[in-house]
Amino acid sequence: MNEAFLNVLKNEGVVSIVSWGSDEPHIVNTWNSYVNVTEDGRLLIPAAGMQSIEKDIIVNNRVKLTLGSNNVQGLRAMGTGFRIEGTASFFHDGAEFDMMKGKFPFLSRVLEITVSELKQTL
Amino acid sequence: MNEAFLNVLKNEGVVSIVSWGSDEPHIVNTWNSYVNVTEDGRLLIPAAGMQSIEKDIIVNNRVKLTLGSNNVQGLRAMGTGFRIEGTASFFHDGAEFDMMKGKFPFLSRVLEITVSELKQTL
Repeated sequence: MNEAFLNVLKNEGVVSIVSWGSDEPHIVNTWNSYVNVTEDGRLLIPAAGMQSIEKDIIVNNRVKLTLGSNNVQGLRAMGTGFRIEGTASFFHDGAEFDMMKGKFPFLSRVLEITVSELKQTL
Repeated sequence: MNEAFLNVLKNEGVVSIVSWGSDEPHIVNTWNSYVNVTEDGRLLIPAAGMQSIEKDIIVNNRVKLTLGSNNVQGLRAMGTGFRIEGTASFFHDGAEFDMMKGKFPFLSRVLEITVSELKQTL
């Protein structure tokens, strides 16, 4: 994983997750600090609501995420941002669920993003 | 304008702007501090790239934006976020262009968002 990306996760900020099924795109948000990166590079995110993603991925499981921080050095200046493409699924049991539930007691499911592209945009 | 929203703009963070034309949605990002609110409630944002929005709005001028800050009190806890719906256009001359160019010399056009809905999500 890109080091700047991991540094962004240590600096709080808003993550946007965009999903799209058969109608218009939907956006949900989470915090940088809620994004857990697994050893094999998947992103695990606590989900309480996120019903729009759940509906959209029945039709199309692709998602796009953006996040960044003004406190992390970017490509040319201070402040960096990332655009991620991947596929989404939810799970609600298992060892990774238990680990996430321990960190985020409010979650009802875990949103798992399998990353196909991670692009530093700034 | 919502006071919490105006406070978010004073705290740096990543803004996501989603547009969608005839294919998949596209996301571009800007910074909270780059969003200028006019007296009549439009959002003016400096545009250097943002070609995806320009292409999409030929087909569909609706956009969705999200932004927030962990440093602004939200509805129930510290940290707040907003989801905005509106329509987008670009302009490249006039008094508002000159004002924006003065603040953001790197811009080539100004992205103008006419807000139809501003929803505090957190």
